[in-house]
Amino acid sequence: MTTPDPAAGDRARELDELVLHSWSKHGQVNPFTIARAEGVRMWDYEGREYLDFSSQLVNTNIGHSHPKVVAAIQQQAAELATVAPPTTNLARGEAAERILSKIDDMAAVFFTNGGADAVENAIRMARIHTGRAKVLSHYRSYHGNTGSAINATGDQRRVGNEYATGHVHCFGPFLYRSEFWAETEEQEGERALQHARRVLEAEGPSTFAAIIVEAVPGTAGILLPPPGYLQGLRDLADEHGIVLIFDEVMAGFGRTGYWFAHQHDGVKPDLVTFAKGVNSGYVPVGGVVISEKILATFRERAIPGGLTYSGNPLAAASIVASIDAMTEEGIVEHAKHLGEDVFGPALREMAERHPIIGEVRGRGVFWALDLVQDRESRKPVDASVIASIKAALLERGYVPFGADNRIHVVPPLVISDEDARAGLAILDEVLAAHA
Amino acid sequence: MTTPDPAAGDRARELDELVLHSWSKHGQVNPFTIARAEGVRMWDYEGREYLDFSSQLVNTNIGHSHPKVVAAIQQQAAELATVAPPTTNLARGEAAERILSKIDDMAAVFFTNGGADAVENAIRMARIHTGRAKVLSHYRSYHGNTGSAINATGDQRRVGNEYATGHVHCFGPFLYRSEFWAETEEQEGERALQHARRVLEAEGPSTFAAIIVEAVPGTAGILLPPPGYLQGLRDLADEHGIVLIFDEVMAGFGRTGYWFAHQHDGVKPDLVTFAKGVNSGYVPVGGVVISEKILATFRERAIPGGLTYSGNPLAAASIVASIDAMTEEGIVEHAKHLGEDVFGPALREMAERHPIIGEVRGRGVFWALDLVQDRESRKPVDASVIASIKAALLERGYVPFGADNRIHVVPPLVISDEDARAGLAILDEVLAAHA
Repeated sequence: MTTPDPAAGDRARELDELVLHSWSKHGQVNPFTIARAEGVRMWDYEGREYLDFSSQLVNTNIGHSHPKVVAAIQQQAAELATVAPPTTNLARGEAAERILSKIDDMAAVFFTNGGADAVENAIRMARIHTGRAKVLSHYRSYHGNTGSAINATGDQRRVGNEYATGHVHCFGPFLYRSEFWAETEEQEGERALQHARRVLEAEGPSTFAAIIVEAVPGTAGILLPPPGYLQGLRDLADEHGIVLIFDEVMAGFGRTGYWFAHQHDGVKPDLVTFAKGVNSGYVPVGGVVISEKILATFRERAIPGGLTYSGNPLAAASIVASIDAMTEEGIVEHAKHLGEDVFGPALREMAERHPIIGEVRGRGVFWALDLVQDRESRKPVDASVIASIKAALLERGYVPFGADNRIHVVPPLVISDEDARAGLAILDEVLAAHA
Repeated sequence: MTTPDPAAGDRARELDELVLHSWSKHGQVNPFTIARAEGVRMWDYEGREYLDFSSQLVNTNIGHSHPKVVAAIQQQAAELATVAPPTTNLARGEAAERILSKIDDMAAVFFTNGGADAVENAIRMARIHTGRAKVLSHYRSYHGNTGSAINATGDQRRVGNEYATGHVHCFGPFLYRSEFWAETEEQEGERALQHARRVLEAEGPSTFAAIIVEAVPGTAGILLPPPGYLQGLRDLADEHGIVLIFDEVMAGFGRTGYWFAHQHDGVKPDLVTFAKGVNSGYVPVGGVVISEKILATFRERAIPGGLTYSGNPLAAASIVASIDAMTEEGIVEHAKHLGEDVFGPALREMAERHPIIGEVRGRGVFWALDLVQDRESRKPVDASVIASIKAALLERGYVPFGADNRIHVVPPLVISDEDARAGLAILDEVLAAHA
């Protein structure tokens, strides 16, 4: 709870005129203004309380203001907030050790500032490791929004890094909106693999450095891979000497009820990108988890990539505290329980009553409601419907996450069963009003 | 000062095996391991004290562990460390307001995670604003190391963002190693401008979205632009409807004795990129300062760029505290004084005694010693000489910054005259031993 201070809220909205926001037109100040947050609760300056069912941009896996993470940030800030990346640093080493303790058979971590530059560096590593240029990824995916700075650079660090070309896309599996005329999950998985293989063959498999896919595509709609699909990509990669990268920026660190989403499928990647849930975004950070196979290349030659804030001690300390707290408090196990016992059953039951719900998809605390005009055509609802649902949810104190024709149900993993049910009741009520 | 704890140092070096470092081969653990830092001083786990003459990667402008910035981070961490970018936030608005208070005629700020994605977004804005693709930048420049993630992305956010092509480079002015057979600063500036104009003409000036240059190229050698050069670029940009971007990631926030390095030249850019000195890197952050001319474009259409941590409140709070402290304590004025009264005279005097110094260049607390095999040929010293100088400096408790054949003298701006002279004396001694 926070002491109401409406004047500060007014001041925040006034100053917001000076900020250009991501993915936005300028000048449309968002009246939703948060003063403080704790766990799954947020308070605005007027003292109103909200339940966070968005985890912001699906990043506050550990909830807001976790006392152990806050304390670690406070202590590290007083000791050494920043240090040059080449200087050995204890917090950074411990962060790498904690991350590697949650994933088998990986050897090292390269730290970045967020998810986009994690993907940049994973692709860079794959290209240098293989000596090849092309990268295969999915349509219906998001891997970050950088693509130019190294090309503008004018020193030798540009050479060997001009990698923006050679990107090939194919369709991934998504049975509800199949691109392969499939009727079962099994068929969808098999056909998606055949499609990926055919695209590789048509492009020349020996020209590919990497296959990069989200272990569970997130913003694209929480598209669980059919059984065997990720293993099929692993086999394809091995067959052609291609590096397999799983992008776990959104799906990683407990979101699906596993430390890494691909662990559900039992498939081992060569590189894994992460950000968001690794420290819940308290301090900007991301990175790449590296297998010994790839690391061996960089024992022989330097990686031509760097960032001033790579392995920033403040970020590193927040990672250590966050992973320790998630482990001690059983937060990943709780996420699995929530998916199996609360969100899965409740959302499927809701779908029986609301024909606007075309499909419920998800695992752990990572769920999407695919909203349709009618179940026969599966035609997505208009953007105005999503806007209206989001506004109605916010009005009832539920912070929503909307994407295209979907509402994603993605609260912090620490949400209690009771709070989860309270949020679901609000969602139920709002969907009923949008029948 | 910090209590020695050699075991923690050993542990840091042991865990460092798990970290792949920027621009490095793996497995070469840096024995230089820092436990704590304050102002211009750093202490290792063995209790040894060092003078920071590097500002790490030229980012700790305000020095280490500034109490006001630390306190701001600690308070914000307890209230609200992270919030989704669209949510209005007071710390973020205040950070924008503080930045805009130090630069005339600019309208808004777009926040990023660091310098590279600041450049990404500045180029993105220029391309959308002009509807053109090409970008002119200098050889001998560094603008960051991203160039691929958006191309790997498979959703609609890729469309309109595939901008890695169309990068054209030309030589900028650098009299000591002129590419234009110039003999005076004036001639170098005029010829560099003529060269830039000829490259634009040969490429088609109406195809250019942006000219991006570091206001003072930093890692490339601290290359002060000749009088009139930046104005000449401004005129060229205006003549052809091109957006002028000054990259102030390293030169900005007091480093040259001005809040922004280009203010020395009295030239107004359309966009300015920043990072590093804006909060001394305590929390990873960067951004773009936007003129009303460019912002007007984004009042009409959304900017197709975003980051989970854009405007992260923890970073924003550290910016507010840092700029306030720099203002209250007169740190930028002090940097100007240091350049004019301490570093400039002392380094020039040193050059008279050490023939290894080919040229001294700089302003404020931003100085380069261009080291040569002999003054006649101006041939750069070998990498081994720089490595030996750096090792000797570190051994004497001076943390150095080396680049190519140069030693950059770039301590925090808060360094006292006395500490500055103490560091210079060490440098003098080491250069004498490398005569």
